[in-house]
Amino acid sequence: MDFSAQQIADFLQGEVVGNPEITVNNLSKIDESEPGTLTFLSNPKYTHYVYDTKASIILVNKDFTPEQSISTTLIKVDDAYQSLAKLLQLVNSVKQQQRGIDSLAFIAKSAQIGENPYVGAFSFIGEGVKAGNNVQIYPQTYIGNNVTLGNDVIIYPGVKIYADCVIGNRCVVHAGTVIGADGFGFAPNDNGGYNKIPQIGNVILEDDVEIGANTTIDRATMGSTRIHKGVKLDNLIQVAHNVEIGQNSVLAAQTGVAGSVKIGENCMFGGQVGISGHLTIGNNVKLAAQTGVISKIPDNVTYMGAPAFSHVQYTKAYVVFRKLPELDKSIDALKKEIEELRKNIH
Amino acid sequence: MDFSAQQIADFLQGEVVGNPEITVNNLSKIDESEPGTLTFLSNPKYTHYVYDTKASIILVNKDFTPEQSISTTLIKVDDAYQSLAKLLQLVNSVKQQQRGIDSLAFIAKSAQIGENPYVGAFSFIGEGVKAGNNVQIYPQTYIGNNVTLGNDVIIYPGVKIYADCVIGNRCVVHAGTVIGADGFGFAPNDNGGYNKIPQIGNVILEDDVEIGANTTIDRATMGSTRIHKGVKLDNLIQVAHNVEIGQNSVLAAQTGVAGSVKIGENCMFGGQVGISGHLTIGNNVKLAAQTGVISKIPDNVTYMGAPAFSHVQYTKAYVVFRKLPELDKSIDALKKEIEELRKNIH
Amino acid sequence: MDFSAQQIADFLQGEVVGNPEITVNNLSKIDESEPGTLTFLSNPKYTHYVYDTKASIILVNKDFTPEQSISTTLIKVDDAYQSLAKLLQLVNSVKQQQRGIDSLAFIAKSAQIGENPYVGAFSFIGEGVKAGNNVQIYPQTYIGNNVTLGNDVIIYPGVKIYADCVIGNRCVVHAGTVIGADGFGFAPNDNGGYNKIPQIGNVILEDDVEIGANTTIDRATMGSTRIHKGVKLDNLIQVAHNVEIGQNSVLAAQTGVAGSVKIGENCMFGGQVGISGHLTIGNNVKLAAQTGVISKIPDNVTYMGAPAFSHVQYTKAYVVFRKLPELDKSIDALKKEIEELRKNIH
Repeated sequence: MDFSAQQIADFLQGEVVGNPEITVNNLSKIDESEPGTLTFLSNPKYTHYVYDTKASIILVNKDFTPEQSISTTLIKVDDAYQSLAKLLQLVNSVKQQQRGIDSLAFIAKSAQIGENPYVGAFSFIGEGVKAGNNVQIYPQTYIGNNVTLGNDVIIYPGVKIYADCVIGNRCVVHAGTVIGADGFGFAPNDNGGYNKIPQIGNVILEDDVEIGANTTIDRATMGSTRIHKGVKLDNLIQVAHNVEIGQNSVLAAQTGVAGSVKIGENCMFGGQVGISGHLTIGNNVKLAAQTGVISKIPDNVTYMGAPAFSHVQYTKAYVVFRKLPELDKSIDALKKEIEELRKNIH
Repeated sequence: MDFSAQQIADFLQGEVVGNPEITVNNLSKIDESEPGTLTFLSNPKYTHYVYDTKASIILVNKDFTPEQSISTTLIKVDDAYQSLAKLLQLVNSVKQQQRGIDSLAFIAKSAQIGENPYVGAFSFIGEGVKAGNNVQIYPQTYIGNNVTLGNDVIIYPGVKIYADCVIGNRCVVHAGTVIGADGFGFAPNDNGGYNKIPQIGNVILEDDVEIGANTTIDRATMGSTRIHKGVKLDNLIQVAHNVEIGQNSVLAAQTGVAGSVKIGENCMFGGQVGISGHLTIGNNVKLAAQTGVISKIPDNVTYMGAPAFSHVQYTKAYVVFRKLPELDKSIDALKKEIEELRKNIH
Repeated sequence: MDFSAQQIADFLQGEVVGNPEITVNNLSKIDESEPGTLTFLSNPKYTHYVYDTKASIILVNKDFTPEQSISTTLIKVDDAYQSLAKLLQLVNSVKQQQRGIDSLAFIAKSAQIGENPYVGAFSFIGEGVKAGNNVQIYPQTYIGNNVTLGNDVIIYPGVKIYADCVIGNRCVVHAGTVIGADGFGFAPNDNGGYNKIPQIGNVILEDDVEIGANTTIDRATMGSTRIHKGVKLDNLIQVAHNVEIGQNSVLAAQTGVAGSVKIGENCMFGGQVGISGHLTIGNNVKLAAQTGVISKIPDNVTYMGAPAFSHVQYTKAYVVFRKLPELDKSIDALKKEIEELRKNIH
């Protein structure tokens, strides 16, 4: 769909400077713009792009005054970044209006689905499933027996949710993610092998949780693996059985959390972090990418390294690590000098 | 389903102390118990929870004698932990009784499936597939042409098994796992790009192997990628082409094993371990989480670090690493002191 | 299918030495051969296997002259390794001739599919999809609205491609991979939680890209996440939003690339590498497995460690790291010796 500069300015309560009839059909970044797109100037560092961008419309703050002549149409608004966010939301909401239950979906007789759903082809909804209103269940998803889905939940294609799990309101789960597979529990037996410890708990995602693609969250042995309200998990993350992740914590891709770990609120972890089993991580903890945690961490610290310690101290230690060969030589030299001195004294 | 204390005591050959009529419908951990659940006391460290747990029934060893009054009903058994395991098995077996072939499954004409199967909706069973008795093939799985499945195999939703692979008896494969994708083999060509080396081997899982969710096990270039009897792999693990993993070895989540590596028997690897190509790892090797292996490892050792060496020595070296900035200063101070001494001597 | 030594020699323009009637139905490695297979001798190190291999036919270079008597039939060719590659290609092409559109596929009315396609059961092809000629779309794949697929594309079972993405000619995507899920973008809000930043860009795979199994490539916030021509990605790799990977670069399994990173051409990364956001990596860069990159990297270097620096210097520093406990003791000893000397001087 194409929109004119005037239509967009009206929507954003802004003012057109230039051609109100010019139309766009997409958004772009100012350093990668194409004709027919709308771009924006938010960071002053990018101001020089304004004069040679190929975009058809530029969203600018109302106090922006060009220092050269500009052929591109401007829309002046109170806050260009906020206005951009509004446009992104608009574009996004237009895209996601898929509704209806496909005749090629499998829905068990005892499943209950609320108002205004989308249930795509080849999706499987098991016995006893309870889904709220406005759920979007994409094709090829598996919603196991007795799973509960809140209102406004989005389950992208190919997600697998094992039986008995609970997904809160407004949760979003991206393609290929597996929720509720068995925790990794085995007990050694007398034959040198292992017996499986049945995993009869579940996974609970509280409200407003978003999970990336191909992530795995295992069901608890007993009780629940619990992801608290507002948590955001990236792609390819491993969350083991009986883990608990506190409210509004954010974990980047490929991080792994071993069994029974408790992570506090408002934490931020970089990618590829690993946390050993049964540890407690405090609130507001930041972990650098690839950090390896093998003991508990208090509140409000930033850690790095494997095993992890203070980020500042790690960085200082690593500076010296890099010059270890020199240090090694220095020590050898010192030994010789002392030997010399000793000879001179005696 | 609800069970009374008496019913459970009879099943476990135990004795009720308290109300034999009280009922439960789930199991719980003693520090997280809810009314209507049965919990257990196995580790003496948790004894204090017995006096204020909310659980309706507690499973205890027969020699347990409370030191305070308890309102909760007890079931006394020879070994509380063993009895718990029996109850878990019971709960689990009740849950997994799905049988029958769904009319929305695709089964090729030449496929053979044994007695008493479950084949879920939207699963695909290719030409020449041979499946044993009591297999459970969940919805949306892909069983490629000429794949062999043993007896009592469980394939969870969305698993993809490429053509010609072999899955042994009693194997369990969790959702989203991919078995038999092409190994990562490319040869540089004259145009600065790469030609694909066809991967015409397969993957063999021997008996009693369990694989977690979203793990990938690549087919061999030629011959087989082989996972020996009793191996347990966690979630999101990468096993490259022509790898061999010895009997009863256990690998934690997000570990990566490069091409043609041979891992011995009874090994235990922590999470996020990485092993470079063409190496041999001995029997009974333990690797700490995030270990990086770039040379072969003998039997019966515990390694850590990247590149990996003895776990004990790594830990000692890391203690010094943490105080490297001080060491650096000490060396500078020593240099100055020696300079001073030299002046004093001359 | 069985082939005789003579048939194979004719195909390869080689010469049979031995029984031209003997037949084989598979290829094997010389140290793992079975009767009924053809093996090859390319690396002289393996020559001793020639005399006791169980294979029925051995492919050898024409200048090979046995030093002992051999019962196995030989096929002499100009270049055994090149001839093997030809045979692998042949075996592979025979296997992959699946064609036709399954009646259990869902294809939207506005989707356009070129000549000679394979579209498997339970695959979903959305509105506005444009697919070229000779595409192979395996069962249970999801091709979102307005996705473009080039000619000769292979999409393996269970791949999920979100709306608006573009897949170039001859691309291969292995099972379980997710292309175009939302980038991981959230902005803190006034309630201590996060608002989602809509991700309205797409993913573009240029021609000749191959992607392994269960990898994730996120769509751009705006614009495109772009994988250039000839790139090869292994399994379980994370590619975040707005990343760009240059032509013919090769990334091993479980590597993670954070948002807006630009990787040059002809790079080679080992497994489990991590790259922080917004960095530029030059051309021809090699990164050892598990390397962690937190600052930009120039062209033509080999890096290692976390944070990464020169591979050669890292290796030297790590040698000293391993003996840090000794160094620590040496420094203590030096302090004492200097103390002694000082006493002797005064």
